[in-house]
Amino acid sequence: MKNKRPKIVFMALLFGMLVSTIIPTFAADPLPSWNDTDTKNAIVEFVEKVTEEGSPDFVPPAERIATFDNDGTLWGEQPTYFQLAFAIDRVKEIAPEHPEWKTKEPFASLLKGNMKGLAATGQKGILELVVASHAGMSSEAFGKIAEDWITTAKHPKSGKLYTEMVYQPMLELLDYLRANGFKTYIVSGGGIEFMRPWTERVYGIPPEQVVGSSIKTKYEVKEGHPVLTRLPEMDFIDDKAGKPVGINSHIGRRPILAGGNSDGDFQMLEYTTSGEGPRLGLIVHHTDADREFAYDRDSHIGKLDKGLDEAGKRGWVLIDMKKDWKQIYPWSGN
Amino acid sequence: MKNKRPKIVFMALLFGMLVSTIIPTFAADPLPSWNDTDTKNAIVEFVEKVTEEGSPDFVPPAERIATFDNDGTLWGEQPTYFQLAFAIDRVKEIAPEHPEWKTKEPFASLLKGNMKGLAATGQKGILELVVASHAGMSSEAFGKIAEDWITTAKHPKSGKLYTEMVYQPMLELLDYLRANGFKTYIVSGGGIEFMRPWTERVYGIPPEQVVGSSIKTKYEVKEGHPVLTRLPEMDFIDDKAGKPVGINSHIGRRPILAGGNSDGDFQMLEYTTSGEGPRLGLIVHHTDADREFAYDRDSHIGKLDKGLDEAGKRGWVLIDMKKDWKQIYPWSGN
Repeated sequence: MKNKRPKIVFMALLFGMLVSTIIPTFAADPLPSWNDTDTKNAIVEFVEKVTEEGSPDFVPPAERIATFDNDGTLWGEQPTYFQLAFAIDRVKEIAPEHPEWKTKEPFASLLKGNMKGLAATGQKGILELVVASHAGMSSEAFGKIAEDWITTAKHPKSGKLYTEMVYQPMLELLDYLRANGFKTYIVSGGGIEFMRPWTERVYGIPPEQVVGSSIKTKYEVKEGHPVLTRLPEMDFIDDKAGKPVGINSHIGRRPILAGGNSDGDFQMLEYTTSGEGPRLGLIVHHTDADREFAYDRDSHIGKLDKGLDEAGKRGWVLIDMKKDWKQIYPWSGN
Repeated sequence: MKNKRPKIVFMALLFGMLVSTIIPTFAADPLPSWNDTDTKNAIVEFVEKVTEEGSPDFVPPAERIATFDNDGTLWGEQPTYFQLAFAIDRVKEIAPEHPEWKTKEPFASLLKGNMKGLAATGQKGILELVVASHAGMSSEAFGKIAEDWITTAKHPKSGKLYTEMVYQPMLELLDYLRANGFKTYIVSGGGIEFMRPWTERVYGIPPEQVVGSSIKTKYEVKEGHPVLTRLPEMDFIDDKAGKPVGINSHIGRRPILAGGNSDGDFQMLEYTTSGEGPRLGLIVHHTDADREFAYDRDSHIGKLDKGLDEAGKRGWVLIDMKKDWKQIYPWSGN
């Protein structure tokens, strides 16, 4: 019996080592809403190799920049861009102050609920809509308007708040990247000041890490109060070839990881993945008509055509929502 | 003799307490190059009150944004803006590729060393100089050009590298703020891509925390390589009323501390210090003709006139270089 002691101690030590080295790896799956597919593996492999000190693929934390599109990538964009829903609600809200809108397009169509007529006003109509709903107030006042809307307006299909229409697997990916020393950015065609009031609360991304489209602002002192007044003029469109420009202007470094979902993200992925060293390009492919929406090449919103053709040869990873995601929304369950 | 023991022990304990509570306060002066004046006290009091949890003036770390002008605030700007010296050196370097410059202003004057003639070409001449020296290449190539220059070019008066012409007390201030949870930014009229290659090394400020003037860039794929090409067109001038606009665009929060040195920083200080809660505005006043330069109201470079008039009533702290700074440069000693 006496002889057994050392063996038991040894076994206990060994077991303890096993517990401490192996078990935590399983226990701490940082991406629980992702199925164990090649997609998840590609993401985890990338993160592990760029964070492994001494590895030839090691990237210092300061250079671990990850940029993500927002509409259709981090939150939904169907049946219409959420910011367009905001613009429409806003125009309806202030319409009583603008009796002339009853007969003036694009407002007349919008107020009658004639979305076809609104669409027919084209680019010019949309721009007038943006100006009417987004300009003329101070940046601070606009931030308050955006925040009030986002905390109350509901998605027409789900009845949930728009900020609940975010993809649970992408929230986990953002957390996972940050836990591994990445700095996560939004680089969206959406309005920079529309997003900033709530991105920290919803995505953990602070205002200074949000890049987006903007209208011009002017600094002035009004009745003794310095304000930035939002002018009725576009400043920058952060879409397509604008995305690398926005990244260069705001970040000043080329990302090593970029995620998008439409051809509006093509140049961001191209710019990101053509840098030297390890790079990862991700495309969220909306393939799940049951749990979300299914659309790509022929969609007016979030059109994904060139990206689908070229993902393979460029080594970009297509995220197949239906196959790769266990769960879509934080509230929808598996 | 026996009775003395407890007393000795008591004295030793007391001394130990004194050592551990008082000495470190002296030992850890975070601003050793600052004289113990009202200026230093105002800075330290501000930092202590905004970082004291439970204090009515407490500011959460995420909102501890500090913005600093560069030329004349963090580094020198005499006898001329360092970036102008860069532009001149650059034009001289590439002049052999441009034989037409021998007779074309502003290049003809510049190449002859006729600074008066160069100045006479005015705004238009300066813009042509900027375009010739700063545009036409990719952002990456320009970054390399700027870095090569900054690591070799010498200041005409001191013979030191330009990056050695930084103010030691301001380096300490940046470190002190960061040690207290502040995020430090440069908000300069200088070129954003001229500064970014070296601000992290020199100031500990990474590229994404540099805001500056810019020329337009265009994303394009050249011979299979995606590049951002620098175009011969101004995009944004980050000076005067442009500074709050640049801050809003890049940071999206109002700073709680801003430091400048000229009337070009007036609006940044006004915007910063008119927000709610505790705010600090700092102006570096160049008063030291012996150790640096003395200039303010009548200077062409770094003109400080309105700021001098209004600092008092706006509660901005004037940093008197001569009185407040023990040491000017990292290499100049006390």
